[in-house]
Amino acid sequence: MEEFVLDTGNTAWIITASALVLLMTPGLAFFYGGMVRGKSVLNMMMMSFGALGLVSVIWVLYGYSATFGTDIGGIIGNPTEYFGLNSITDEQSLMAGSGVPALVAAGFQATFAIITVALISGAVADRMKFGSWMVFAGLWVTLVYIPMAHMVWGGGLLGGDGITAGLSVPIDFAGGTVVHINAGVAGLVLAVVLGKRKGFGKEPMRPHNLPFVMLGAALLWFGWFGFNAGSEFAADGTAGRAWVNTLVATGLAMLAWLVTEKVRDGHATSLGAASGVVAGLVAITPAAAAVDTFGALAIGAVAGVLCALAVGLKYRFGYDDSLDVVGVHLVGGLVGTVLIGLFANVGEGVNGTWYPDGALNGLLYGGGITQLLTQIIVAVAAMAFSAVVTAAIALALKATIGLRVPDEQELGGVDLAVHGESAYETLGGARIGSGDSSYTAASAARPQTEVKA
Amino acid sequence: MEEFVLDTGNTAWIITASALVLLMTPGLAFFYGGMVRGKSVLNMMMMSFGALGLVSVIWVLYGYSATFGTDIGGIIGNPTEYFGLNSITDEQSLMAGSGVPALVAAGFQATFAIITVALISGAVADRMKFGSWMVFAGLWVTLVYIPMAHMVWGGGLLGGDGITAGLSVPIDFAGGTVVHINAGVAGLVLAVVLGKRKGFGKEPMRPHNLPFVMLGAALLWFGWFGFNAGSEFAADGTAGRAWVNTLVATGLAMLAWLVTEKVRDGHATSLGAASGVVAGLVAITPAAAAVDTFGALAIGAVAGVLCALAVGLKYRFGYDDSLDVVGVHLVGGLVGTVLIGLFANVGEGVNGTWYPDGALNGLLYGGGITQLLTQIIVAVAAMAFSAVVTAAIALALKATIGLRVPDEQELGGVDLAVHGESAYETLGGARIGSGDSSYTAASAARPQTEVKA
Amino acid sequence: MEEFVLDTGNTAWIITASALVLLMTPGLAFFYGGMVRGKSVLNMMMMSFGALGLVSVIWVLYGYSATFGTDIGGIIGNPTEYFGLNSITDEQSLMAGSGVPALVAAGFQATFAIITVALISGAVADRMKFGSWMVFAGLWVTLVYIPMAHMVWGGGLLGGDGITAGLSVPIDFAGGTVVHINAGVAGLVLAVVLGKRKGFGKEPMRPHNLPFVMLGAALLWFGWFGFNAGSEFAADGTAGRAWVNTLVATGLAMLAWLVTEKVRDGHATSLGAASGVVAGLVAITPAAAAVDTFGALAIGAVAGVLCALAVGLKYRFGYDDSLDVVGVHLVGGLVGTVLIGLFANVGEGVNGTWYPDGALNGLLYGGGITQLLTQIIVAVAAMAFSAVVTAAIALALKATIGLRVPDEQELGGVDLAVHGESAYETLGGARIGSGDSSYTAASAARPQTEVKA
Repeated sequence: MEEFVLDTGNTAWIITASALVLLMTPGLAFFYGGMVRGKSVLNMMMMSFGALGLVSVIWVLYGYSATFGTDIGGIIGNPTEYFGLNSITDEQSLMAGSGVPALVAAGFQATFAIITVALISGAVADRMKFGSWMVFAGLWVTLVYIPMAHMVWGGGLLGGDGITAGLSVPIDFAGGTVVHINAGVAGLVLAVVLGKRKGFGKEPMRPHNLPFVMLGAALLWFGWFGFNAGSEFAADGTAGRAWVNTLVATGLAMLAWLVTEKVRDGHATSLGAASGVVAGLVAITPAAAAVDTFGALAIGAVAGVLCALAVGLKYRFGYDDSLDVVGVHLVGGLVGTVLIGLFANVGEGVNGTWYPDGALNGLLYGGGITQLLTQIIVAVAAMAFSAVVTAAIALALKATIGLRVPDEQELGGVDLAVHGESAYETLGGARIGSGDSSYTAASAARPQTEVKA
Repeated sequence: MEEFVLDTGNTAWIITASALVLLMTPGLAFFYGGMVRGKSVLNMMMMSFGALGLVSVIWVLYGYSATFGTDIGGIIGNPTEYFGLNSITDEQSLMAGSGVPALVAAGFQATFAIITVALISGAVADRMKFGSWMVFAGLWVTLVYIPMAHMVWGGGLLGGDGITAGLSVPIDFAGGTVVHINAGVAGLVLAVVLGKRKGFGKEPMRPHNLPFVMLGAALLWFGWFGFNAGSEFAADGTAGRAWVNTLVATGLAMLAWLVTEKVRDGHATSLGAASGVVAGLVAITPAAAAVDTFGALAIGAVAGVLCALAVGLKYRFGYDDSLDVVGVHLVGGLVGTVLIGLFANVGEGVNGTWYPDGALNGLLYGGGITQLLTQIIVAVAAMAFSAVVTAAIALALKATIGLRVPDEQELGGVDLAVHGESAYETLGGARIGSGDSSYTAASAARPQTEVKA
Repeated sequence: MEEFVLDTGNTAWIITASALVLLMTPGLAFFYGGMVRGKSVLNMMMMSFGALGLVSVIWVLYGYSATFGTDIGGIIGNPTEYFGLNSITDEQSLMAGSGVPALVAAGFQATFAIITVALISGAVADRMKFGSWMVFAGLWVTLVYIPMAHMVWGGGLLGGDGITAGLSVPIDFAGGTVVHINAGVAGLVLAVVLGKRKGFGKEPMRPHNLPFVMLGAALLWFGWFGFNAGSEFAADGTAGRAWVNTLVATGLAMLAWLVTEKVRDGHATSLGAASGVVAGLVAITPAAAAVDTFGALAIGAVAGVLCALAVGLKYRFGYDDSLDVVGVHLVGGLVGTVLIGLFANVGEGVNGTWYPDGALNGLLYGGGITQLLTQIIVAVAAMAFSAVVTAAIALALKATIGLRVPDEQELGGVDLAVHGESAYETLGGARIGSGDSSYTAASAARPQTEVKA
């Protein structure tokens, strides 16, 4: 092991990128929270915040170690190796080659685990028990996210020496399989196990606050520059390539979504703009530094159109993926992961441990069919793994602690029933938009008064 | 051309600054969106988001090249030279002298083009066709922003070797002429060509959500540290000077605006605080690293008072610059650009290619009258160029595709008419504040239900 | 004095961290603003924004100098030494040892002074004169914050050579005493001098917008990475330790708060999650890089439980600390400051001027009782100093310009009475949630119309 030499510039960027990615989870809370009805916005946001708290503790205790520790059977790392992150040395840093200390690298990776879990919550809006969500979050990050991240990034079965070793090295620059395909499949499975919202497909369930959706999209985009350009592990030209692609693919995906709905529905909506932003970000994630500008534009355009079409699938097939985790994250993640097989243009090694020097180029860049096949194989394997393990967790919880709130709580609104709160209060005491006169619980967290309301 | 030597510290800062400046455009969407009435907030935000998507694509394709490519006639750079940003080398980086790779520099500059276009939208609130706005945005960035940026920063007629070559080198550290005077003039011209809102000057048009205005101001200020301190192209003491000035000029401008309205109206308002923040940020932009603390305080104080007074001009002269692009950006930009002529205190070269070593000092710092004249000449030239070309674009669009929505759409609200959405929904289905019972379109971007509402 | 050698990486991080910390104050405005009723949200936010403007000017003029200038009597630095920050050299930089220029360091420190003042405003919601608040802010930062920061960080009585010199070196990595204990005590004193809100303890005063509270908590957490990891003054492994602790202590504090209120009240609330986040951030602040993961977890867990319990004290003791500055910042600050005495694990010198090389370890890490005693002594001394001087300022203002708005303004809402505005307007002109028909003042900052409303 070489001696560690600190690079303050690379370290400055990764510390910054870590904070940027962390902000994505509250951003997601607003993206999702604005999209639900006013009676369940707090619950929606609490699923993101709760995941943030829980996964941060898990990650620091054993998550990092089980992801990046010594490989065990191609599936998982050694969870005790860096337990608690107290004894890890900078020479053992995931980013030692960039001169980034171990704790900085571990913090950066924490934020990926956090948001991946939070992404799933969009599929279960309005109807899941909060306690069951928290248990699910803890199990899922342990049994699905960590193994997947290890398999792709930690030297396991979906990495360069894994199941595609005879073909090529799979490319997942910043998390197309690990984050988006993974969360998208999990959302689909959990939504199916959980069942549909009351009134799904029968009554309108319009977003209660579209500016919040746009705020969420904005914070996601902002943070995503840390997600993608930070995944270079260094402040260099390759990070610049990831940055530019994260701008331009996303910009075009937004335009493509708006055009798609303008043609289909006659209106270009703000919900479409926000959704197109996220679709573009998802799709460019695995490819961020692995394609050139034209590849990024192609990925953005395809993602914008396909995801805009895909969000209607839930009505056709009758699963209530409430806020379109499937339509945006699974479809967007597949678009990016597979199109790498066409557009990959990796002239030299980036992130040394991930890509060997030399060409992993895609079909349209002279690389033949092998990279495309590699990408497809990894995507399918990731989907299968995520689906099976998520289903096992969801069914086990359903059979034991239960997943779903009682119907009357769902109809009355989970904010009041589960959290004892309503999102908005008016000046005079009547709550905005509420016809519910049974509200008696003061916000309990900080009892603003001790008298009865 | 010298060999490129990567500086990871400077690169880390510019990547970060790029993300900060990108966030300014959604910040602007909230600053503007909170200020309009509840029936047009989504449209207001969509003008910023739409500009973000479109300009990002244009910039990466030919915008950067036409700004920083080889000069053609002092007006424009070669648009094909770096087309698509695929073949640009780090040696050709705008920031090669700081060891910042070409793609990082190009990404940073993209964010400036984006927000300049978005700034204009404040002048046309509530009444412009969204499609026409998008066409305007594409034409304007191509025909006005890019030439202006080239002329000032790319070696053209408004730079050191340009029309003021016999006097002095114009100072525009971070965009007083290119961004703020430019957008301010364009807003004025477009507002005049477009015509007034129905009811302008006759009925109250109060901000529907002042916390959103303050959120926008906060995100703008936050991002503006990237805008100004990033314009140093390096993480050094000069960037620190820009940072401190961006803090202190803005803080004093806010206080000055509050005092002005307290004296004039009897109330210090939150809208005034948010507006004072932006006025101060605008004014210090061209001067950020070119003045000392006292210069920054003077610029902040003058901007706070003058802009607070200037926002009333539209009522006197009868143009409907709805959200005060003129009063804040044009006046603030002029304050900063001209006061540089008094307060410039450039002890040594900053941003090598922009300022020569030695004194470009202002009148009050022993530099004589030449810098003041230089600044005034450039400001007037920039105003003239922006006014003429913007007018040509606006009039051409007015005569062809039309600029303005039908009156009934304006009165009913552009959100519903143009985007098929309303910003807020209440729990029970009735929309907050709407007396409109004709709403049947579900949010179309993601049809939350397929049944009729 | 050694020659200054710029480190662009460390400088990039501190410039970035400065912007992050600056964003915390608007974040606080939302955290607090969402918690008050709809009739005083703008006033609540204006106290943060006003402090931001005023303190930024004071800090740049004499605040930095009086904090970090040559010591005078152990209490204060020389306020004229670096007056205006124009003549300070990089060799004199507080962070010269890290290669960070003086102006960057001064900007970073400005943001700490700003938010400390703003924190106090939570105690005086709904009832304080805005003008008196601004005078208080100016006096308090001058007479309390600056001396405290000098005493702890500038070589004064609460630093290594101060009153605990015979015991050990007090550890306050990022501001437990200077920021949180200080603001918490000041909030308590000011709330007592000011008196209770009308209806306190008798009628419900529920948060009017809980998503805003969560937005505020999110922006605070995001910015706090700059606060804590930036306090290392460098981008290195110690900053990484501060980053990881700021994640994990905060995550666990949130969970601990939620569990506490679930057990006590039956509901885990979003207000509790947001409050737990802030409690955890406060508590880990002084200890950020001085404890290991287990210390951070212990501090987070204790802070989450104790602060959740402490916010009820105001009802028992009858002081109206409206938004729980005492319960969160004073209690959280004490938790962190005192528990350092148990968990400190400082293996080597960090921030050279603060800690000597070698062990300042806490009681549970083999360091004996001295560090614990040192921490307690400093905490008590800081409380006493803050209480006495804050009381003097508050009583002097009460006796002269008065502190409190007239009762009818408080009951009608300070937004309208003091600022001439209401936070929200509906489409048709009626304001959301208002039963008040006497509203005639248009928003005065930018008279959106000149006709009478």
